[in-house]
Amino acid sequence: MSNETEPVTIDVRAATRSYSVLVGGGLISRLRALLDARGVPGPRVIVTSPTVWRLHGTAVAAALPDTAVIEVPDGERHKTVTTLQRIYEALVRARVERGWTLVAVGGGVIGDMAGFAAATYLRGIGLVQIPTTVLAQVDASVGGKVGVNLILGKNLVGAFYPPHLVLSDPMFLTTLSRREFRAGLYEVIKYAMACSQSLFERLQRDLPEAARPARATAVTPIVAECCRIKAAIVSEDEHEAGLRRVLNFGHTVGHAIETLTGYRRFKHGEAVGWGMLAAGLLAVDRRLLAPADFAALRTLIMQLGPLPPIADLPASRAIDAMQRDKKVAGGRLHFVLPAGIGSATVVGDVRATELGPVLERVGFQAG
Amino acid sequence: MSNETEPVTIDVRAATRSYSVLVGGGLISRLRALLDARGVPGPRVIVTSPTVWRLHGTAVAAALPDTAVIEVPDGERHKTVTTLQRIYEALVRARVERGWTLVAVGGGVIGDMAGFAAATYLRGIGLVQIPTTVLAQVDASVGGKVGVNLILGKNLVGAFYPPHLVLSDPMFLTTLSRREFRAGLYEVIKYAMACSQSLFERLQRDLPEAARPARATAVTPIVAECCRIKAAIVSEDEHEAGLRRVLNFGHTVGHAIETLTGYRRFKHGEAVGWGMLAAGLLAVDRRLLAPADFAALRTLIMQLGPLPPIADLPASRAIDAMQRDKKVAGGRLHFVLPAGIGSATVVGDVRATELGPVLERVGFQAG
Repeated sequence: MSNETEPVTIDVRAATRSYSVLVGGGLISRLRALLDARGVPGPRVIVTSPTVWRLHGTAVAAALPDTAVIEVPDGERHKTVTTLQRIYEALVRARVERGWTLVAVGGGVIGDMAGFAAATYLRGIGLVQIPTTVLAQVDASVGGKVGVNLILGKNLVGAFYPPHLVLSDPMFLTTLSRREFRAGLYEVIKYAMACSQSLFERLQRDLPEAARPARATAVTPIVAECCRIKAAIVSEDEHEAGLRRVLNFGHTVGHAIETLTGYRRFKHGEAVGWGMLAAGLLAVDRRLLAPADFAALRTLIMQLGPLPPIADLPASRAIDAMQRDKKVAGGRLHFVLPAGIGSATVVGDVRATELGPVLERVGFQAG
Repeated sequence: MSNETEPVTIDVRAATRSYSVLVGGGLISRLRALLDARGVPGPRVIVTSPTVWRLHGTAVAAALPDTAVIEVPDGERHKTVTTLQRIYEALVRARVERGWTLVAVGGGVIGDMAGFAAATYLRGIGLVQIPTTVLAQVDASVGGKVGVNLILGKNLVGAFYPPHLVLSDPMFLTTLSRREFRAGLYEVIKYAMACSQSLFERLQRDLPEAARPARATAVTPIVAECCRIKAAIVSEDEHEAGLRRVLNFGHTVGHAIETLTGYRRFKHGEAVGWGMLAAGLLAVDRRLLAPADFAALRTLIMQLGPLPPIADLPASRAIDAMQRDKKVAGGRLHFVLPAGIGSATVVGDVRATELGPVLERVGFQAG
């Protein structure tokens, strides 16, 4: 295969097991051999979405023949206990037993739901994550967070369940829409701003060129670098007691935007884009972040094109949504604030009176 | 308090945390002080059943004032994803956050469901088990197995999630029906037959006297001994890779009986009573168990009174149900077989042709 290169291997240490993240072209064509060589347990069953399977089912099935395939609807709106129950019932019908492995092939929603199903079916079976979006490759597939949403809020039900193996192949990214592809790059900017000045500088240089699905292999080194950053963080702080929280940069406001718009208007990354701008502005107000560094962040975000509008979303309703979100402790809001390029800090004392005006300056509706 | 004695403390080592099981009279009256002294995290929320709360709510609420109470229906039929979702939603409405602790007050069903909710709400909050039945005190509350049933089978969804503390107070047992009380004692016989000759001999001596709710404090040393046995086993083998499986003695057939009768006719322990007889007979057939030891087991089981009938349940349908159960591996059935009094072994090669005639001799309908 022309795009087959030696994959980058990143090791993650988790409390209950350690695992590897492989990033590189041609991984899928060697899928079965990789699973066997890495000691992934037992017979396998695939969980995927109809869209992913239509585009990539032939390639995956050729690499993993005679494997049952469970298709469930994709999209944040379907990341529910109801879809989860469909997965459980399909696993029973496929006679999946202890010692089997669930192979999740899809974006973040499929990975989160199928991962939670693997964590809880028969009290835990094997799990391999094969992320098919930029977002899932750089973030969701690494670190063992799995779960589903409740009507009352996002990711309220879940577990920490490390996969046995993660395989990120750029082949999947070539079929993403331009919008989906770019939405994942906001999470890449998150890593750069919160954790890595060198990645930030690389993005300043390469982002305009890399932001196209057709150039998916060009994004591979960036994906690998994000996985390296995340692996280092979750190996230190798997259960998000401290350090890992910096990866929530942009997410406090981002989740609120998604909640207010019913997970329909925004791709997750796009909501995080607005969230990073809000957190950045808050950090400038607190004299934690230099205005020039905020400007550099804003420029990078803007290079990915216009974000969907928030001008019809009242700032006060966004704050209400945040207070219902799980990051609330004792009424005051937690925020990850950038403290420079490649550096972030967690604060737990943000009040509505401080946040409201910031949200209005970012572009939320007043009041 | 007249029934207040120094509690027995049993320590359990689990991979993710170690915890104590306290068994003794008067624990509930000191509930708040015990939780604080043992470092149980944060604010608390109680999950219980209407029946338990009607009988014991006043005592528990007095010991743990200003605590939100979530009531959910009890009974194996309600141990579903649907009830679980009700708990999640009530936790959101009660504004339960990370760092809180869920206090489960109830029998095995409440403990399993509420425990699974604690394991998965916000990816895991604190958990205290306050078991209120004999069965829950000797078995379900210790060892960290939590979960719910699917329509297609029992306990198919779950996790290993160690509690922070288990408090077993005989006060709760005094309000059990005679049938409920005795049903739990079948699990006590299970421990004795599978693990402890000295407990078996104690039961031969004390069982007729101890088998009455009014004598609940007399059963306390027996409860403590069962917890000691279970603690030793799960400290060695939390995730049921080997040793812990002996605790499934009587459960392969027991689960099948419950499934066939829709969890309505049998208390769990009663189904296990039949299951122990079936496994015992299988062991005698294989010359693993001496006929005299089987007779001693049968005598002990019979002392608890007649078991609900199985004569209308066809043996073949019971075998079908077992093959759908999670203990199947490759078509042949796993069984825990007694190898003497206080000793058991796991086999994985039981075929329908061997099992059918045994089930018929135990009392299942032929064919």
